[in-house]
Amino acid sequence: MRDIETLIEGLVKGDKLALAQSISLVEKDHADAWDILSHAASVSGSGGQRGYRVGFTGPPGSGKSTLVDTLTTVIRGDQGRSNPTVGIIAVDPSSPFTGGALLGDRIRMEGHYSDSGVYIRSMASRGSHGGMPNVAQRVATLMEAAKKEYILIETVGVGQTELDVMEVADTVVVVLVPEAGDTVQTMKAGLMEIADIFVVNKADRVGAEKLAKDIEQSLNLIYEESYWRVPVLLTEATAQVGVQELRTTIENHRAAAEESGELQQRRRRRRRAQFVKTIEEKISARFYALLAEDEVLRGLLRRVDDGVSDPYSAANEVLKDQRIRQRWLSMP
Amino acid sequence: MRDIETLIEGLVKGDKLALAQSISLVEKDHADAWDILSHAASVSGSGGQRGYRVGFTGPPGSGKSTLVDTLTTVIRGDQGRSNPTVGIIAVDPSSPFTGGALLGDRIRMEGHYSDSGVYIRSMASRGSHGGMPNVAQRVATLMEAAKKEYILIETVGVGQTELDVMEVADTVVVVLVPEAGDTVQTMKAGLMEIADIFVVNKADRVGAEKLAKDIEQSLNLIYEESYWRVPVLLTEATAQVGVQELRTTIENHRAAAEESGELQQRRRRRRRAQFVKTIEEKISARFYALLAEDEVLRGLLRRVDDGVSDPYSAANEVLKDQRIRQRWLSMP
Repeated sequence: MRDIETLIEGLVKGDKLALAQSISLVEKDHADAWDILSHAASVSGSGGQRGYRVGFTGPPGSGKSTLVDTLTTVIRGDQGRSNPTVGIIAVDPSSPFTGGALLGDRIRMEGHYSDSGVYIRSMASRGSHGGMPNVAQRVATLMEAAKKEYILIETVGVGQTELDVMEVADTVVVVLVPEAGDTVQTMKAGLMEIADIFVVNKADRVGAEKLAKDIEQSLNLIYEESYWRVPVLLTEATAQVGVQELRTTIENHRAAAEESGELQQRRRRRRRAQFVKTIEEKISARFYALLAEDEVLRGLLRRVDDGVSDPYSAANEVLKDQRIRQRWLSMP
Repeated sequence: MRDIETLIEGLVKGDKLALAQSISLVEKDHADAWDILSHAASVSGSGGQRGYRVGFTGPPGSGKSTLVDTLTTVIRGDQGRSNPTVGIIAVDPSSPFTGGALLGDRIRMEGHYSDSGVYIRSMASRGSHGGMPNVAQRVATLMEAAKKEYILIETVGVGQTELDVMEVADTVVVVLVPEAGDTVQTMKAGLMEIADIFVVNKADRVGAEKLAKDIEQSLNLIYEESYWRVPVLLTEATAQVGVQELRTTIENHRAAAEESGELQQRRRRRRRAQFVKTIEEKISARFYALLAEDEVLRGLLRRVDDGVSDPYSAANEVLKDQRIRQRWLSMP
């Protein structure tokens, strides 16, 4: 218990090593993770969030990493004490076998290495209990406890993870490039509905203006009276073009979402989801422990393994078994 | 109970309407779904799988749908009684708001409309309890109970869903096109490790041969002595070129996986996952029911909603509460 207290103390002081260790414990579903999370969340007055979370999503190769890096540079300005601090969560489409996601960290850290107001962490999009949004949310909470004011969350690849980002972010930025495919693909993938801000990056390339216009037209088609009208920005992240404007637009969305109550609603939904998921996870963890030690359960598992029982009938047997339920229930 | 019995009877006879209704019940997590699944799984002697499941994955626009359709035509041949029957599960990257995935069904059905040996069903990649692989697996089990011998599962988009396909399939086919990006992207996305067969589709286009060679070289780099050497095929699905060869290669992989014991292992892992996930889901469902009716729990939820309690401390309170635990596990 001593060690955890020291860790939490370091975390809320903004100590980088304590933050790194806390994140590792949470990613590993370590038993102490819940203590750390409770403390980290209670540091904030608003039930677990005091930073502002911006999600970046879009197809691979659209330059999200560069955009996030450049935006970080803009936010940090002269790196003076009064500038907001930044935490970056890079969600990598990791190989199911090798894990991946480590090399990138090191390469990217270099740009902000000398700036103690920036903390970068990669995480695999796969394999963690409860999936990416669940873990990203917790990592964000830890970063915020460690005094990071902006949390930038960047996902890679079109698919589940892309849409999940809206479960984590206060503002969702969808990043596209001219060659990323047509607008129909974008709409099909559900990106139209989750975007708070569209960015056409690599705007010096052929087709950028046209893509921006296409998106605007599509947005007009689905537009309903709302607290916010989704803008389409043009950026060249590598040349820092349009990135200051992106920052301002994020702030504008923040203000609009706050005034309309949309921000409070999103955060409320998120807190509720974390509450329920945490309970589910803990109950599942107990079941896994029971599965390893209970003889009857192990026997059933063997029957399923060998194809003697089908998985659904076997599951039903477990749930009807009073003794197993009792053991499960009485686990610490 | 009468109705469910009739439904199951129809299902195992191969009745299309009964199959469609059963799938809908499973997708909706209907209370009767488990009865149907138990029956469907027990119809098969091998603990829940009697068909052969082939997964198709790769970036959007690689022509997977056309390839799956053409392969179906090849498998069905003259549609004679002795040809294998086919079930197709098309996983769509559905919009989180509109659901999507319906129009596609109708358009695609037309090609096989007159053939009662083919059944096509789309499902959303998102929103279902336990995620795509979980639901796809169950839908596959239902299709197999309805006497479909080949189950072709097709996913869209690079990301989580793409990799998940290996949790469902006996053979994984990764489909690429010359313009789909370079080999590095493919390796980064983890597709190299999950492929049992690579297909370079739209092989009439510039760069197809080069892409095939690049993949072969990458495969050589990571190749280890194994039961199977991953082949790279060239196809033009729209012109039916190379599709017969793909079918033969799938059969070859099947034979090799069966002989080496790899197939039995994959299926064993899958059964085990279904057993554990089914228990987790049912326990979660009970918790949601309790959350709606228990006054103490509702009070806690309100505190979380309002940001008065942080989600992690509140979750901990629930798990320590003997009365709630008792109620939870004593629910039917």
